[in-house]
Amino acid sequence: MPSPSACVLIIGNEILSGRTQDANLAFLGQRCDALGIRLVEARVIADNEAAIIAHINECRARFTYVFTTGGIGPTHDDITSATVARVFGVPLRRSPEAVEALDRYYEPGTLNEARLRMADIPEGARLIGNPVSGAPGFQLENVFVLPGVPSIMQVMFDGIVDRLSGGPPILTVSVTTDLLEGAMASDLGAIQSAFPDVSVGSYPFFRRGTLGVNLVLRSIAAGRIAACRAAIEEMLKRLGGRILNRGAPKST
Amino acid sequence: MPSPSACVLIIGNEILSGRTQDANLAFLGQRCDALGIRLVEARVIADNEAAIIAHINECRARFTYVFTTGGIGPTHDDITSATVARVFGVPLRRSPEAVEALDRYYEPGTLNEARLRMADIPEGARLIGNPVSGAPGFQLENVFVLPGVPSIMQVMFDGIVDRLSGGPPILTVSVTTDLLEGAMASDLGAIQSAFPDVSVGSYPFFRRGTLGVNLVLRSIAAGRIAACRAAIEEMLKRLGGRILNRGAPKST
Repeated sequence: MPSPSACVLIIGNEILSGRTQDANLAFLGQRCDALGIRLVEARVIADNEAAIIAHINECRARFTYVFTTGGIGPTHDDITSATVARVFGVPLRRSPEAVEALDRYYEPGTLNEARLRMADIPEGARLIGNPVSGAPGFQLENVFVLPGVPSIMQVMFDGIVDRLSGGPPILTVSVTTDLLEGAMASDLGAIQSAFPDVSVGSYPFFRRGTLGVNLVLRSIAAGRIAACRAAIEEMLKRLGGRILNRGAPKST
Repeated sequence: MPSPSACVLIIGNEILSGRTQDANLAFLGQRCDALGIRLVEARVIADNEAAIIAHINECRARFTYVFTTGGIGPTHDDITSATVARVFGVPLRRSPEAVEALDRYYEPGTLNEARLRMADIPEGARLIGNPVSGAPGFQLENVFVLPGVPSIMQVMFDGIVDRLSGGPPILTVSVTTDLLEGAMASDLGAIQSAFPDVSVGSYPFFRRGTLGVNLVLRSIAAGRIAACRAAIEEMLKRLGGRILNRGAPKST
């Protein structure tokens, strides 16, 4: 049985315009690996109702889990909650539980109507607690609606881990070398063929004036990843490459 | 007539696993703004033939331009070029022009078969020059195939600007304030309604212990963006917010 799959929908004009650098995908990618959930794709879309509806509907049918980030604040451009309600054909209702959470966070007298909008949640949704700034996210079926601010989203994601069923964690080992891709491509391809249960990725880099390659091995099988690493190290030695650093096996 | 549209396809397992932080989307978003091309969405997908084919086919039909990044190097996991050839139903052919470009870059005797694979280009494609490391990208119809390494991709993108038709540049102004979203949401919504030709985005931040909001105005109309900024500054003053910094109008 293949591991559960996931898709991330990053909702926000500010990411598409290049004004804001997304930081949520890398976090979610690492967490999915550790949970044994295959993050199959991510999409960055605009704060646009038609686009949000189309992408959520496509992705919730195709993937085990859909994680959205962004668009659940109090301003006019925060349309994710209302749009998700439309996706599921349910009304948006002011949630007493969410009002209570906001009430605990805001100073007396400052919980105005705009802020209360953050307690308007699609009917039937299960809340996702926000210990940082009060305003909750929510889950409807396999769609998890999270905020865009990375520090808040990350804490809230930790709160939903027990709602997710994963497979065995995906282990990652990386080997960095000064041997260039073209010098080892043929041998590396042979190693990949010999280890079909290990994904061997090759990522060239140019940094601080240094040329090199990160070889990244990913697998759920610790023994196979170790054997594949040994084969790669033997290859690098044979071809005259140096090993610049070597990551211990870990679940990213 | 609406401005031309674009989609970015970021091809690479390393972005999805969270091992590598994408840096190409922010660059392309800013360039599209300056060129007057609406970057409507971006997708991050795996180095997987079926996924690449499905997404390129969907996106090339929907958008004026599709920019792909990643997967055109010499190793076994670089499958973008062969896959794009399948998308267009054309054979992959060794391009003499591309071989010549590689030959200029590599030391005599080092242009081996693995490196020559980077000269295998779909038949009928127009090359995109790579002044950094030789290996070209290519264009087939409205699909532009670029490398994943940001420093190389960025230089190569500059080389295709004259193949792209844009609209008027999208101007951006940002106003940063310590007033929180909930305190201005109602007034800000009214300003957005009064300026339907300016996109008013509100982005809260928590950094260096400071809470605040970036208000980002985007429009092709310089006069309207200036008037909208004046209205926002008047509102912030009236509500007791400070203006922490203020971006000059620019095409991002």
